[in-house]
Amino acid sequence: MLQSGISLQGAMAAPSVLVVAGTHGNEVNAPWLLDRWQQDPGLLDSSGLTVCAVIGNPAARQAGCRYIDRDLNRSFRADFLALDGEAPRPLEVDRARELITVYGPEGRIPCRVAIDLHSTTAAMGNCLVVYGRRPADLALAALVQGSLGLPIYLHEGDSAQTGFLVESWPCGLVIEVGPVPQGVLDPRIMRQTRLALETCLACLAAAGESQPPYPRHLVVHRHLGSVDLPRDQGDQPNSVLHDDVLGSDWRPLGTDQQVFDAWPSESLSTTLQPAFDGRIPVFVNEAAYVEKKIAFSITQREVWPVLETWTDALSELMHAH
Amino acid sequence: MLQSGISLQGAMAAPSVLVVAGTHGNEVNAPWLLDRWQQDPGLLDSSGLTVCAVIGNPAARQAGCRYIDRDLNRSFRADFLALDGEAPRPLEVDRARELITVYGPEGRIPCRVAIDLHSTTAAMGNCLVVYGRRPADLALAALVQGSLGLPIYLHEGDSAQTGFLVESWPCGLVIEVGPVPQGVLDPRIMRQTRLALETCLACLAAAGESQPPYPRHLVVHRHLGSVDLPRDQGDQPNSVLHDDVLGSDWRPLGTDQQVFDAWPSESLSTTLQPAFDGRIPVFVNEAAYVEKKIAFSITQREVWPVLETWTDALSELMHAH
Repeated sequence: MLQSGISLQGAMAAPSVLVVAGTHGNEVNAPWLLDRWQQDPGLLDSSGLTVCAVIGNPAARQAGCRYIDRDLNRSFRADFLALDGEAPRPLEVDRARELITVYGPEGRIPCRVAIDLHSTTAAMGNCLVVYGRRPADLALAALVQGSLGLPIYLHEGDSAQTGFLVESWPCGLVIEVGPVPQGVLDPRIMRQTRLALETCLACLAAAGESQPPYPRHLVVHRHLGSVDLPRDQGDQPNSVLHDDVLGSDWRPLGTDQQVFDAWPSESLSTTLQPAFDGRIPVFVNEAAYVEKKIAFSITQREVWPVLETWTDALSELMHAH
Repeated sequence: MLQSGISLQGAMAAPSVLVVAGTHGNEVNAPWLLDRWQQDPGLLDSSGLTVCAVIGNPAARQAGCRYIDRDLNRSFRADFLALDGEAPRPLEVDRARELITVYGPEGRIPCRVAIDLHSTTAAMGNCLVVYGRRPADLALAALVQGSLGLPIYLHEGDSAQTGFLVESWPCGLVIEVGPVPQGVLDPRIMRQTRLALETCLACLAAAGESQPPYPRHLVVHRHLGSVDLPRDQGDQPNSVLHDDVLGSDWRPLGTDQQVFDAWPSESLSTTLQPAFDGRIPVFVNEAAYVEKKIAFSITQREVWPVLETWTDALSELMHAH
C-alpha cells in the first residue's frame, strides 16, 4: 500500500515505512521510480507494508543540484534540529525538521523505518550503507544480504560526516546504486534500485512475522577513513586517482598498487603512494565528494555473527500493534 | 610557447591559437590539464605555436556548475554580443564579450583559431565537434582525422542551438571527450584531451607550412536533429532511454531497435519507438542536455572529398605574417 502524505491504518497495521528518494536533488533515478510508483501503485511490491514515499529535497531536485544551502543528508544533526525559530536556517535544516515532524517516529504520519535511495558516480553496484551499529539496522542489513548477497558499507566513527537522514528513525539504511553520472536517467540503475527496495520491504515484512530467514553471518565493509587527493601548497590537488583504482570499488588494493597519478608530472607519481595494502576502497571518485575532499574511503571486510539482540530489535520494531 | 594573458611575438610569429578549457564549469578535466600546463609549459607539445590558454567560465568552475546565468557555449550570439551597456546582462554574455575583446581576431591578444575543450557524460570517446561548414574548420578537422582517425560530429542547421564559442573566431572546433561524470577528475579523459589538443596544434602548425598531410576524404556525422524523451501531458518524460541505446554513440541504430523504455510501464514500451533505422546517435544521455530536452542527437555518416577551398582557407589563416 503506497501512501503519499496520507496514512491509512488497516486492522492489523504493521508499522509504516518511509521511503525517501531525491535526498540529493541531482540523483534522479530513484525519484523517477517513485513518480512512476505513485502513478501505478502496482509497479513495486511493498510486501503488504504501508509505505510513505516522499521526495527528500524537492527544491534541489527542481534546481538539478545536490542541495540548495547544505547537504540534506548531513543535516539531521541534533544541534541543527534544535536551532530555535528565530535564527535564519539553511533550507535543508528546515526540510529535515519537516520530514521528522511529518514522518518521524512521533510524527503526524509515524514511520518506524526509513529507506533512503541514493545513486553514485562510483562503481558501487547495488549496495547498502549502514550508519553505526544499531541492532535493528544490522538485522535488516543481514536479511537483505541473505536475500541478495549485496555488499554493505558500514559507516561509523567519522566525525567529519554526521547527520544522516536514516539516523532520525529507529531503523533505516541507504540503498546506493552506481555508477551513474549526476542528472542522468538510466533504467539499469532504476531496476537495481527497485530490486533492493522491494527486497528491503520484503525483509521488513518478514521481520514482523515468525522465523525470518536470517543468515548466520553478516559481512560488512567497515569504514576506516577517507582519503583525499594529494594537494599542493595552495590546497589544490596535484594528483588524480590512478587508472588502476578507478572503478575498483570493493576490490582490495594490492601491495605497492599505484593509487594516485601525478600525471602529467610523471616524476611525482612514485613518491605519492600511501600504503593501503589489503584495504578495500569504496565511493571511488564520487563526484559529490570532491567538495568534501574525499577521493575514496577505505574499508576493512569483517564477518560478524548475526546476534539475537539484532533480530529481536527488528522483530519488536516491525511487530503489528 | 604557452601564453596566459601576455602575447610575445617572435620574428616569424605564426598566428596565435586560443585554447579554452572550462567553458562549462563542471567539466573539470581540461581545466586540470591547463593548470598543469601553466605550471610546466613542457608538458604539452604546442608544435611551436603561440598558445593562449584560458579558463572559459572561471565563475562556474568555482561554483562547480555548468554555468551561472546561462550556457556560455550558447552565448556567442550576435544579438547577445550587441546588447548595449545599460541593460543587465547574464554573466556569461559579459564573459563572451570579454573573451572576444581580449582574444578575438581583433582583440588585444589576437588569436585566429580557437580550440574549445569539453567533456561529456556520453560515451563519445575522443572526437571533434565542428559547427557548420566553414572551409578552414573542415580543413583542420580533416588534418586531425587524418592523423588520429577520430569521429567528427558536424553540427549545423539547428536553430535551437546557436551561439557557440568557436564561431566567434575565424577557425575553431571543439574537442569532446567522454564518458565521464560531471565534476570527476579522470586521467584517461585528460590523456585523450591532451592527445587531441596536441594533434590539433600540430595540424595547425603544418597547415602554415608547405604540403600539409591532408587525407583525400573527410568523414563527418552530420547532425539531422535532436530527440527528446517521450513526455506525458504534464511535460514530464514518461520513458527513459533503453539499455540497448545507452553507450551506443556512433553506432547505427537498427531496424525496430528499441530506443525508449517506458519501464516500469512495460505495456507502453512497444508503442514508443520512432523509426531511426540507420541513423547514428551521438551525445546519448548527456547530463547537461536534460534541460535542453535532448536525449540524444541523430546524425548521418557522410564522406566528403577534401576541397582545395578548405585547404587554401586554413593555409592562408595559418601563414606566418
